Amino acid sequence: MSEIIELCRQAREASYALSAASRATKDAALHAMAAALRANTDQIVAANAKDVAAARESGTPGSTVDRLALDPARVDAMAAGLEQLAGLVDPVGEVVRGYTLPNGLELRQVRVPFGVVGIIYEARPNVTADAAGICLKSGNAVLLRGSSSAAESNAAIIAVLRSAAAEAGLPEDVIQGVPGDRAAVKELMQARGLVDVLIPRGGAGLIQTVVMESTVPVIETGVGNCHVYVDEDADLDLALTILLNAKTQRPSVCNAAESLLVHASVASEFLAKALPALAEAGVTVHGDPAIVAAGNDVVAVTDEDYGKEYNSLDLSAAVVDSLEAAVEHIRKYSSAHTDAIITRSQAAARRFVQAVDSAAVVVNASTRFTDGGEFGFGAEIGISTQKLHARGPMGLPEMTSTKYVVIGEGQIRS
Amino acid sequence: MSEIIELCRQAREASYALSAASRATKDAALHAMAAALRANTDQIVAANAKDVAAARESGTPGSTVDRLALDPARVDAMAAGLEQLAGLVDPVGEVVRGYTLPNGLELRQVRVPFGVVGIIYEARPNVTADAAGICLKSGNAVLLRGSSSAAESNAAIIAVLRSAAAEAGLPEDVIQGVPGDRAAVKELMQARGLVDVLIPRGGAGLIQTVVMESTVPVIETGVGNCHVYVDEDADLDLALTILLNAKTQRPSVCNAAESLLVHASVASEFLAKALPALAEAGVTVHGDPAIVAAGNDVVAVTDEDYGKEYNSLDLSAAVVDSLEAAVEHIRKYSSAHTDAIITRSQAAARRFVQAVDSAAVVVNASTRFTDGGEFGFGAEIGISTQKLHARGPMGLPEMTSTKYVVIGEGQIRS
Repeated sequence: MSEIIELCRQAREASYALSAASRATKDAALHAMAAALRANTDQIVAANAKDVAAARESGTPGSTVDRLALDPARVDAMAAGLEQLAGLVDPVGEVVRGYTLPNGLELRQVRVPFGVVGIIYEARPNVTADAAGICLKSGNAVLLRGSSSAAESNAAIIAVLRSAAAEAGLPEDVIQGVPGDRAAVKELMQARGLVDVLIPRGGAGLIQTVVMESTVPVIETGVGNCHVYVDEDADLDLALTILLNAKTQRPSVCNAAESLLVHASVASEFLAKALPALAEAGVTVHGDPAIVAAGNDVVAVTDEDYGKEYNSLDLSAAVVDSLEAAVEHIRKYSSAHTDAIITRSQAAARRFVQAVDSAAVVVNASTRFTDGGEFGFGAEIGISTQKLHARGPMGLPEMTSTKYVVIGEGQIRS
Repeated sequence: MSEIIELCRQAREASYALSAASRATKDAALHAMAAALRANTDQIVAANAKDVAAARESGTPGSTVDRLALDPARVDAMAAGLEQLAGLVDPVGEVVRGYTLPNGLELRQVRVPFGVVGIIYEARPNVTADAAGICLKSGNAVLLRGSSSAAESNAAIIAVLRSAAAEAGLPEDVIQGVPGDRAAVKELMQARGLVDVLIPRGGAGLIQTVVMESTVPVIETGVGNCHVYVDEDADLDLALTILLNAKTQRPSVCNAAESLLVHASVASEFLAKALPALAEAGVTVHGDPAIVAAGNDVVAVTDEDYGKEYNSLDLSAAVVDSLEAAVEHIRKYSSAHTDAIITRSQAAARRFVQAVDSAAVVVNASTRFTDGGEFGFGAEIGISTQKLHARGPMGLPEMTSTKYVVIGEGQIRS
């Protein structure tokens, strides 16, 4: 048996005890994990220093090195995140629906853990603690495969979390790192039956690879090409405030706006204010001919631009003749993450909300709110952009499946 | 563009109008489809006669030919199924949860159609009308790929349904058949982004192929290796009644029992009654040494037997030393469809229900109840044996995704 299959089997075995654990036990484990992270800060920061040194040596860009680096404050934030999870309601055991059938059978649909969850991620080492905590709280054994650039950091964090979980009475194999090369990851993606769900967290390339190569069911996360549509009935000051916030408040994230659509009847008035304001905020606008004509520093947009998640201070922009044309543009180019309309018209809002098939459809607010924290979920493992199982920010309930419990007194079918 | 991709694009385009259709429109279409099936009975039966003749000619077994054959009564039953769907609540638009965020944003999670659903099936031609109706009612455009042995029947049914849908004001492309060879099916399975969900309905081979080759998200359905565990605290008469019903009432279906586990402390008493009763019902028992010793006509069981979905009057059987040993056996061999315990003990029932991770866990009743009709769903597209999205019988709500609708008045993130 390969090392990866062996890890998966250990995770499955450990998942049985975890799925039966009470909320009290799981919360105690989360507190123990938080305390252990704090107690082992020096060791974690020292391991991280090796990753940081290797990244610097290999010429990694400064912003990437910054995301990789841990200091005591960041370790403390990881611990605080685990403590926060302990305060959340346990999704396991929730009765989703239930009733008594005509023959007297009592039927309940009850939330249960998936079992074994694989997380494949590129991001900062804090994802390691975060994902481990969310999986533990939702009753799932987790297989963590982080970036090789964070290997030392992740190994140190996982070792600390495992022994803390064991101290709290859970099998340490509820949390495991996945070692090895790309072949090992491929094996993980093919471990159907042993791994219940795979969640890739990272850039479009990683997600595409997992989606294409995995036979384990996947929850696709995160690519965001979000639109702001300024309707003919928009309050234009409000539209500008929202657009600037959606584009510039944190341009590197998936719920930042990447594209502006303006109704033709308000285009000249809106653009007269918006283009200078965007320029002042450092935004490069890639516009269609109408937009280019309306401003000084507008770059001509390409079809590729419309489909892009810039993650930078760039914005594609087009003038549209109607709400329906805006919807059509969004259907063609949006990644179906978050799309917003700015309008005072109830009818326009209703049409837009019905017609735009995205994980989040927003009326008169920034796209930046599509987030587990902002939505009040308390925790988030990622933002699903697929339609199966979970869509939008995924909190603890989205990390569960259900089963039907059927209680009878001898009922048979006739 | 290939023919299949073109079909997918037509389905996507048609899905926009369907997703916006009111329940009244959809129900009118279902009634029109039912009426059209009845009005075109002769034509459908004539098309079916060609399939039946071809099947007979190629030496297809009589039972398979019988499943393929349509007569006016069967066409009428298909129509009645569509009318029944019209009476069910529309899942689209249901608010799954909703609240107002601290910043005043109104958040609602609302059921929406998937968009485009592909159904790949082997079964009887009535699945064509059934699947088309369920998809239409849940707002999904459907691509139907039936067995080539039913090609004439399916084409006739689809033509009738399409024109009836069009008469009711929906685009006819909300229902389409998928023509072509295996390469066409492969293309359908790879049409990620154009097809939202694929549901294979049929034997283990078909399901395995779809799972392995598809990049479109799949809902796996149907293989059932169901267990009946007779606990030490079981009412043995009740256990026998349930076992006989679960095994023999309709042995060819996925929720029929395939395996019996008996606690050692009641084994001799139970088997003394059960083995003759099973033999009398025509059941061949494949037993472990303890079972072989207890009966006359028991065949020695193999490890392969324990994992088998017989779909016939065969039953694997073993004596176990404890409830935990029963659970371990089920974890090893069950297809996680439906597993039952027969016990008078509240504690044993609780332990079994917690530990057995199957789509349905049954206490003191037949496994045969795991069914959309029996569960009161009114319709069923299949029984999911995976943990993602839907588990157990899938009714109309399981044929939907959700989106978040966020209504504000200028909220931005700070």
